[in-house]
Amino acid sequence: MSDRDSFQSISWENGYLRIIDQTFLPKREVYSDLTTVGQVWDAIKKLRVRGAPAIGIAGAYGFYLGIKDFSMQNFDMFYSESQRIADYLNSSRPTAVNLSWALNRILVTIYAYKDRSVDELKEITLKTAITIHEEDRRLCKEIGLHGAELVPENARILTHCNTGGLATGEFGTAFSIILHAHKAGKVNKVWVDETRPLLQGSRLTTWELQKAKIPHTLNIDSAAAFLMQQGKVDLIVTGADRITKNGDTANKIGTYMLAVLAKAHEIPFYVAAPYSTIDMNLESGGLIEIEERDDTEVTAFAGKQTAPKKVDVYNPAFDVTPNNLITAIITEKGIIKPNFAKNFEKLFT
Amino acid sequence: MSDRDSFQSISWENGYLRIIDQTFLPKREVYSDLTTVGQVWDAIKKLRVRGAPAIGIAGAYGFYLGIKDFSMQNFDMFYSESQRIADYLNSSRPTAVNLSWALNRILVTIYAYKDRSVDELKEITLKTAITIHEEDRRLCKEIGLHGAELVPENARILTHCNTGGLATGEFGTAFSIILHAHKAGKVNKVWVDETRPLLQGSRLTTWELQKAKIPHTLNIDSAAAFLMQQGKVDLIVTGADRITKNGDTANKIGTYMLAVLAKAHEIPFYVAAPYSTIDMNLESGGLIEIEERDDTEVTAFAGKQTAPKKVDVYNPAFDVTPNNLITAIITEKGIIKPNFAKNFEKLFT
Repeated sequence: MSDRDSFQSISWENGYLRIIDQTFLPKREVYSDLTTVGQVWDAIKKLRVRGAPAIGIAGAYGFYLGIKDFSMQNFDMFYSESQRIADYLNSSRPTAVNLSWALNRILVTIYAYKDRSVDELKEITLKTAITIHEEDRRLCKEIGLHGAELVPENARILTHCNTGGLATGEFGTAFSIILHAHKAGKVNKVWVDETRPLLQGSRLTTWELQKAKIPHTLNIDSAAAFLMQQGKVDLIVTGADRITKNGDTANKIGTYMLAVLAKAHEIPFYVAAPYSTIDMNLESGGLIEIEERDDTEVTAFAGKQTAPKKVDVYNPAFDVTPNNLITAIITEKGIIKPNFAKNFEKLFT
Repeated sequence: MSDRDSFQSISWENGYLRIIDQTFLPKREVYSDLTTVGQVWDAIKKLRVRGAPAIGIAGAYGFYLGIKDFSMQNFDMFYSESQRIADYLNSSRPTAVNLSWALNRILVTIYAYKDRSVDELKEITLKTAITIHEEDRRLCKEIGLHGAELVPENARILTHCNTGGLATGEFGTAFSIILHAHKAGKVNKVWVDETRPLLQGSRLTTWELQKAKIPHTLNIDSAAAFLMQQGKVDLIVTGADRITKNGDTANKIGTYMLAVLAKAHEIPFYVAAPYSTIDMNLESGGLIEIEERDDTEVTAFAGKQTAPKKVDVYNPAFDVTPNNLITAIITEKGIIKPNFAKNFEKLFT
């Protein structure tokens, strides 16, 4: 395995953006070449590119595609049109924090170089997009290298949802740990929770594991407990959407289930996430608002109704795992063990 | 609510068998009137009727439909043709123990009355089928009445899979407890695990709860833990496929997950099953062979592929819950508490 993964979900191809169209996965591996900002907008809107970091990176390259052919030479006009491009791209997924963050970072950078020529500003824009992409890659790789140290020889690792290269610039978060542990020859097999309701494990994680030639087996989420009972799981690693000051972790629904089961079976439970996921303004997990998603994610599949009409549904997107069930949190800065509150404090000061 | 549930999955309608065609659920409530043994064979084969006790009952009525128009008057000829009918019906679901048990019970009964006329034997056959059906109803009702005593006021009950009137002669097993607790005014709401991979909770249990007008909410299996964490579950009740001499219980995959989570959250975990489910010849759960089912149950849905082709899948039909996680086992003979080994022994002697 080279430094690169065996596929690139997003790559800058000297003038255009190439993405894997995730709507074709896992059936077909289709690459789309995006040459205009409109195509990037469409790709984000239609979930051809998904995963918070990946959306941010695609948006950044899309920004460059949107401004590269501007002919004005006046900064104010250029900046004003750049703002329009940023607003437009942001409208493709208005709730994606990484997207608005990336677009805003480019705008701020352009403004900081307001004395430069428009041609130079275009170059700076592209360089910033490449930097955003490279930073994400480096960060994911660091998470993977740190986390791999925790993986024992011949490990059977259970994971949940998709946290791989498809969702990030490359490597992923929890997936990066699996990838780098595999590179170090330590992975016996990966158990993949299918991850209801949207089946990211089934659709995407298995596909990434196939690409990386890592042995794996797919299981329904409720079979994870039975696997642990049979002594077939050595460790569990998941991603995180938000980590509070005390280490409580919000992540894909089902994560808390795994953490409780891990404790009951004395299996290490690890969380992998960029350092930026830690929200030092939030004291504890009880303060995290749980988004409830559409009922149809649970009541229908592939257009076929699987539950009676008008059935009441509880469909939380996330759950919250309390810090006492987490063995360690792995970020690009290293492995953080309990007491999380104290150890986060040290890192942030 | 009368003594009868609000629907009849199987009913004998003075000359023919009426069933709910379960292949149309939950979208449409379609009743089929079966007038020939061939139609009954087809209904069992095509899963129009499903659930172990329900198949046995349908088979028994089908037996009568198969022999009622025989014109011979000689016992040996009648018995030989009856055996042929039993073999034929049994071939619709050869692995269904309740089916072969019911068919054999009728054959044994016919043989015991070999001195009677063929017309009388036909009557005896129908009466035996009705008895098998009535016994199942009574047994399920007893389970429900005993179990309802364990349900506190205003209870929020979580259940898994389908254990209701669709799968039995009426009332069901775990479902019967919910039904009778509701009748006693004690049910606040029922949480329904969708029950991957075949979604019996989503497709069938919600439908039965709607029919019985019991408040309920559907959730994905991996959200059960989060519900417990939030203090929204007062008790859990599931069915059982097989209970060993020490109380270890094999049941639908996901049951063990619930039992571990119940323990961690200090929530009572009950198992409901006919007394005949207890296998005193099997010492403990470790001896139960776990059936693995077809990969496509996990990798495809409604004809749509959801995982890469050739992915390795672990798809156990059942898991085994150790006796120490079970608060009580409810049978038609009453509530059995630990020590199960000792208390089973008392009941069986």
